[in-house]
Amino acid sequence: MKLLRFGELGAEKPGLVDDDGQIRDLSAHVDDITGTTVTPEALDRLRAIDPTSLPRVDPDTRIGACVGSVGKLIAIGLNYADHAAEANMALPEEPIVFFKATSSICGPNDSIEIPRGSTKTDWEVELGVVIGTRAKYVSETDALSHVAGYCIVNDVSERDFQLHRSGQWVKGKSHDTFAPMGPWLVTADKVADPQNLAMSLSVNGQTMQDGSTRTMHFSVATVISHLSQFMTLHPGDVIATGTPPGVGMGQKPQVYLGEGDSMVLSIEGLGEQLQTCIAALG
Amino acid sequence: MKLLRFGELGAEKPGLVDDDGQIRDLSAHVDDITGTTVTPEALDRLRAIDPTSLPRVDPDTRIGACVGSVGKLIAIGLNYADHAAEANMALPEEPIVFFKATSSICGPNDSIEIPRGSTKTDWEVELGVVIGTRAKYVSETDALSHVAGYCIVNDVSERDFQLHRSGQWVKGKSHDTFAPMGPWLVTADKVADPQNLAMSLSVNGQTMQDGSTRTMHFSVATVISHLSQFMTLHPGDVIATGTPPGVGMGQKPQVYLGEGDSMVLSIEGLGEQLQTCIAALG
Repeated sequence: MKLLRFGELGAEKPGLVDDDGQIRDLSAHVDDITGTTVTPEALDRLRAIDPTSLPRVDPDTRIGACVGSVGKLIAIGLNYADHAAEANMALPEEPIVFFKATSSICGPNDSIEIPRGSTKTDWEVELGVVIGTRAKYVSETDALSHVAGYCIVNDVSERDFQLHRSGQWVKGKSHDTFAPMGPWLVTADKVADPQNLAMSLSVNGQTMQDGSTRTMHFSVATVISHLSQFMTLHPGDVIATGTPPGVGMGQKPQVYLGEGDSMVLSIEGLGEQLQTCIAALG
Repeated sequence: MKLLRFGELGAEKPGLVDDDGQIRDLSAHVDDITGTTVTPEALDRLRAIDPTSLPRVDPDTRIGACVGSVGKLIAIGLNYADHAAEANMALPEEPIVFFKATSSICGPNDSIEIPRGSTKTDWEVELGVVIGTRAKYVSETDALSHVAGYCIVNDVSERDFQLHRSGQWVKGKSHDTFAPMGPWLVTADKVADPQNLAMSLSVNGQTMQDGSTRTMHFSVATVISHLSQFMTLHPGDVIATGTPPGVGMGQKPQVYLGEGDSMVLSIEGLGEQLQTCIAALG
């Protein structure tokens, strides 16, 4: 299934995309797409619904983040060898883990705010993993059974805030709109191999990132197992698993986002995001 | 007002403590103590209720974290000069910011889990600040007007996971039960000066931390204003503002928590926490 949330920011309704690419309204069946909607049992209940029985939704409606009420938005740093090299950072011995503020989550096509005082707002196309069942001290072998599905996340980052504002990366990772998520949560049964998905990101029509989850350093299974040694993952938690080469910080000379710039992101089978940059709102 | 949440973990009910120290049940008026309950308008509605009209609650009931559905649990590192010195870290030029997993939040008297493989589980008594109104790009002058109230937070930390497991502190800050919060959310009008509160923590009856928020390096107002430059604070977000000297890592020789150890934390006017350490649950 391709699940999504549509409608006004903060009042999104649950929906799905049918085989013809039409958005259908799931409001009569669930309140929202959140942790309680993405457990295996809840997903099975949604699978039992005939999509043609659901009301059609205006295709021009706003699309929200594909998961609501996210408990934790966890991100993995330097998880592609070539990206670590372009960032002038050593490839880590185990996953580098940080959090992004859940308040930074927005819809896949919402405008991206350039923070006040920013000179280095950057992009990162990433495979997002949505947790479906509680995971604590799980093995790599069992890890993927805890995944509800996958989505695109743009791990938008202000490099100066991230790296030069008194340690810890969260200051550069947490501004409003710094985590567009979606358009769809594609359930795990519809993703044949999460470690073999083409992914790309272009800025103003120019391809900047063109990679594959195949070159991920720590696999999705390794990341989930590792995280679960340090914290409990709950349904609806989202993990952004790192970005391939081609971020603005890695260009020579470096290139960063400004107002009016636009980004297009895609991951094979997970849809497309389109964002335009604007000045920070108050 | 002293607001609290009582009852079984995950099914807590809202309550308040009356002038006689009796817990009263607020369930007939609000569903829970969360972001929507701690806005100025919502707090005014609660203030208008005569506590003696509310059902009494068994004083032996479990107390939950004083805020539910926390969106962000933000923490400030090295925010007391003497603590920075004992940690062998330089006093930062601006607040060091990190997140703790919201899944680490627990009740003030719940058992603390020692993670598997932990050798350095440590304590940190901290003044917790609960946000009451949205704060983005706010000045220091206006900052305190965004505070709903204050509480105790124990910023439990696994030092080896925090400092020696591939960068970023979250791995040592996010285990289940690593953020006991409460017993009460004391509304800001009942805290005369948040920068003049005695605070202490003892382990197995021995005082280890004995300080005051007076020696905080960056004040609550500075911290809120600073954070609001990097992310939007929302009602129900909680900020743990750093710890005074006396953590286990700062002892000579270092001292850490093991199963069976007990902690008592107190901050002037905000009540007391009591926790016993147990082995990590699965």
